[in-house]
Amino acid sequence: MGKFITLEGGEGCGKSTQAAILADRLESLGFTVRRVREPGGTRLAELVRGLLKDEREDPPCDRAELLLFLAARAQLVEKVIHPALASGDWVVSDRFSDSTFAYQGYGRGMDLDVIKTANAFACANLAPDLTLLLDVPPDVAASRMRRREHATQTAADRIELAGERFHARLREGFEALAAAEPGRIIKIDAAGRPEDVAEGIWNQVKRFL
Amino acid sequence: MGKFITLEGGEGCGKSTQAAILADRLESLGFTVRRVREPGGTRLAELVRGLLKDEREDPPCDRAELLLFLAARAQLVEKVIHPALASGDWVVSDRFSDSTFAYQGYGRGMDLDVIKTANAFACANLAPDLTLLLDVPPDVAASRMRRREHATQTAADRIELAGERFHARLREGFEALAAAEPGRIIKIDAAGRPEDVAEGIWNQVKRFL
Repeated sequence: MGKFITLEGGEGCGKSTQAAILADRLESLGFTVRRVREPGGTRLAELVRGLLKDEREDPPCDRAELLLFLAARAQLVEKVIHPALASGDWVVSDRFSDSTFAYQGYGRGMDLDVIKTANAFACANLAPDLTLLLDVPPDVAASRMRRREHATQTAADRIELAGERFHARLREGFEALAAAEPGRIIKIDAAGRPEDVAEGIWNQVKRFL
Repeated sequence: MGKFITLEGGEGCGKSTQAAILADRLESLGFTVRRVREPGGTRLAELVRGLLKDEREDPPCDRAELLLFLAARAQLVEKVIHPALASGDWVVSDRFSDSTFAYQGYGRGMDLDVIKTANAFACANLAPDLTLLLDVPPDVAASRMRRREHATQTAADRIELAGERFHARLREGFEALAAAEPGRIIKIDAAGRPEDVAEGIWNQVKRFL
């Protein structure tokens, strides 16, 4: 089986950039790496992503939101992640189950036990080998988000707009998850330069080589 | 609170026709009736319906299918059914939770306890006051389906095409559900003329007036 690495953290923590750097570095060592993002990664899951991110006329209620995230994950695990790992490839995912616990559990206040049961079903009990939690102070994250909006000329989506208190609960949630599973989830200080953050990540990943 | 009536049964059992007749009859007595169908009934839920019925390039795996049905249901309950019942209106739904147990549980062989937990979450524990299970022999259902395809010039969708053995398991599933909850689920012989079936349904509904 290949290794399954996930990157987690709030908006503006630099996950996507770091996922790309990590995948490139693994590929340069000869590994086949499948890069995915959540929600998404299959045609169906990307369609579900559109419903979650951009549906403003009839936005999903909290329960529908959770179930849509899990539906997209179920499809991604079944069609992409599980087959890739089974054939010995690595998978690097920008978000996975921990985001559901942080956003829908800690952020929206939904029952963590319900999420645990439903999530285990959705991913057929698959869990990452290693999860890198990229942590940045809220002010750094906010300024990165503003810069990205400016650079890409795109507005923040529905979830990114959820407000300061929501994002504070989210950060506390990620902290609680990391405290509960210190063997799998490693917190990385992600406030510094991308190359320094990448080095911190690599120091954790290289033990799986 | 208004009353919540659901119609269930396999493809070609005449649910949609009977839902319309029942809603008209209730309205003619002065009740306000909200008619819905599952999956669907809100803008988001109809978009999810499209993914479930018509996505052939990347059709949902079994787990994703279940979660998409439940996401659509969560939204329908939250935005339409619960508010309607709370304001004293009646709701008549073409399919609801029992279809999930029959199709995904008995039909696809998914764990019934998992479905029970996830479904209770999706509909915030809402259950119908009365469920009418329209039962027709397989040959009658098949001939009705063929007639409908011909009349509407539309092809059967992904689920309708699931095959004879699937539909046999489905029918057994509905039977088992009715046997387990005889107080809520009433089986109606639906092989006869629509007006006779409607009379059988009305005999059950009128005790709620």
